[in-house]
Amino acid sequence: MMIGIADEEFIRGQVPMTKQEIRILTLAKAQINFNSFVADIGAGTGSITIEAARLAVNGKIFAVEKNSDAIELIRRNVEKFSVNNVEIICAAAPDGLENFPELDAVIIGGSGGQLEKILDVLGTKIKIGGRIVINALTVQTLSTCVEYFKKIGWNYEAIQVQITRFQKISRYDMAKALNPVWIVTATRS
Amino acid sequence: MMIGIADEEFIRGQVPMTKQEIRILTLAKAQINFNSFVADIGAGTGSITIEAARLAVNGKIFAVEKNSDAIELIRRNVEKFSVNNVEIICAAAPDGLENFPELDAVIIGGSGGQLEKILDVLGTKIKIGGRIVINALTVQTLSTCVEYFKKIGWNYEAIQVQITRFQKISRYDMAKALNPVWIVTATRS
Amino acid sequence: MMIGIADEEFIRGQVPMTKQEIRILTLAKAQINFNSFVADIGAGTGSITIEAARLAVNGKIFAVEKNSDAIELIRRNVEKFSVNNVEIICAAAPDGLENFPELDAVIIGGSGGQLEKILDVLGTKIKIGGRIVINALTVQTLSTCVEYFKKIGWNYEAIQVQITRFQKISRYDMAKALNPVWIVTATRS
Amino acid sequence: MMIGIADEEFIRGQVPMTKQEIRILTLAKAQINFNSFVADIGAGTGSITIEAARLAVNGKIFAVEKNSDAIELIRRNVEKFSVNNVEIICAAAPDGLENFPELDAVIIGGSGGQLEKILDVLGTKIKIGGRIVINALTVQTLSTCVEYFKKIGWNYEAIQVQITRFQKISRYDMAKALNPVWIVTATRS
Repeated sequence: MMIGIADEEFIRGQVPMTKQEIRILTLAKAQINFNSFVADIGAGTGSITIEAARLAVNGKIFAVEKNSDAIELIRRNVEKFSVNNVEIICAAAPDGLENFPELDAVIIGGSGGQLEKILDVLGTKIKIGGRIVINALTVQTLSTCVEYFKKIGWNYEAIQVQITRFQKISRYDMAKALNPVWIVTATRS
Repeated sequence: MMIGIADEEFIRGQVPMTKQEIRILTLAKAQINFNSFVADIGAGTGSITIEAARLAVNGKIFAVEKNSDAIELIRRNVEKFSVNNVEIICAAAPDGLENFPELDAVIIGGSGGQLEKILDVLGTKIKIGGRIVINALTVQTLSTCVEYFKKIGWNYEAIQVQITRFQKISRYDMAKALNPVWIVTATRS
Repeated sequence: MMIGIADEEFIRGQVPMTKQEIRILTLAKAQINFNSFVADIGAGTGSITIEAARLAVNGKIFAVEKNSDAIELIRRNVEKFSVNNVEIICAAAPDGLENFPELDAVIIGGSGGQLEKILDVLGTKIKIGGRIVINALTVQTLSTCVEYFKKIGWNYEAIQVQITRFQKISRYDMAKALNPVWIVTATRS
Repeated sequence: MMIGIADEEFIRGQVPMTKQEIRILTLAKAQINFNSFVADIGAGTGSITIEAARLAVNGKIFAVEKNSDAIELIRRNVEKFSVNNVEIICAAAPDGLENFPELDAVIIGGSGGQLEKILDVLGTKIKIGGRIVINALTVQTLSTCVEYFKKIGWNYEAIQVQITRFQKISRYDMAKALNPVWIVTATRS
């Protein structure tokens, strides 16, 4: 199953959603396979969760989200896409993460200001060779990520992704920017 | 007088406005000086016109715009910024351009699908060494510009400018992209 | 098998290579599955070919490339990554494409100035619902793509992807831009 | 006098140079006028210094640079562009800044890892309403800037500028990215 579900396929509501291209790159950086156990922290609409669940068919996705409207969207998307390997956890991470099994990958789309605490907890759950992938939207999150992984001595890579979509307006293709996202990928050595 | 009036200083209404950073680069690429005669085609709110007028204190700016709401905004901005070297022309270019004097610079922010005809007319009005600077928002405008200047043998430069502004949200600085703009600058040789 | 082989894993030589993030997005846009028949036109080092071959395990990849140094690199990468479903064709497309079977996806990384002719030939080989994905590096290729698909009435999507990688220099993470790439994806309806 | 000297006009050597478009935006954000007193910290080749000197004809530019090769380039560019209002200071800032007069603007292109100390010293030299403009190339410099100005309570604005230049290769215009630069502008209130 290939990643890359179109944005409009997801049930969305008012909750912000990771855009398709960022989702694709995030999932590829996480190197999810058939058997992966994955945590999706700040799961939002569940778009990352759904795509991860279709990749890790013999694994499991833990979707952690504190917002109850978002939880409902995740439920509806899980149903729409008929994935049966998702466990939805309504909690403000790092709450709710203590009892996780060993994980192959962690994807963090939102951290509610608790990024370091979340990393402290999840860093111990990740297998050797497993990956943490963070989507940062702010200077502070980007900076916190790189300094954190430097401090704990994990190997990391940081990129900025700037996608512009062309919108058709009569005979023209007009450039419409999406907000840039920083993707930080760290590997447990 | 330095360029770089803040966007919120202009009276704006619903008319799209060239953003500050694009305005600054466009004006610098046009190399306007104290004595310049400048045409601003598709003048919109008049933000480029106003900044050009403050640079070309001994010159003149011809602001051409077909939309009557925009014309009113240009009038109000001319008044607000107390510039007295602007002539406002309500016309759909290339109409209204025939009687222009010799020009030092032309800035084209909008062409209503008539870009080549506008360039045909204005190309003959530009002094040797004078410049045409076009802000392109679509693939078609960018492509038309580079092919046009290739065809007529003018020297040109094309750049893409992608500005992201950081918006303060509590203690965070969040990346918010502006749409990318292509700036094509051609010099009459 | 997840996409996203690191750039340095490929044997490269002096031939330009599609960078990892562009490769990931291109493959996802092509929606390759286990059984896909895929043509990779202007295959270069074969990096797209290799990743496609690992996805389409029950399908086949036709790698078309005119440069003999690049052909040798593709051969060596096919060997290194132990993929056995790649057919390498040394030809300047559209030469060499006539006898292709029906295809699920076409990826065009280079066209040697023959893009429209290549599209003319391959457009007839693509299944209903199949996709053509083009990586454009120039204004002319981008423009040709969108005008071509408009003309033949296929549904298409165009995006610009601008990746910046952060390079570690002592305690700093320094922004290093990759060149932007336009990815045009058209679906045969 | 308009800003926007072409990059190739400057004598450059091996010293990294702020590119034209970044220079233009930096100078505009600094709001330099005829009478401005300006410090250019980490002046490099002197390209910012030269353009500032041509704007502040009745003012003065202090170019601070620790690298002796760069100092020589600044000297040669000052001579080439015949500006007579530049004082070159060979020092590793914050050394050499103590005896500065009151300044209208400070531009920081390089800080040798001493950014906060430099800001501590120069913050006291800036007039009310004066501006500090910093070009950041790394996550750490960007982060340090925004946190510093938050801490001392100055109003600031941060943008990211990503310029792509199109290079002519036969009949094509090929996209070539420059590295993105963050420009942080703070105003003393």
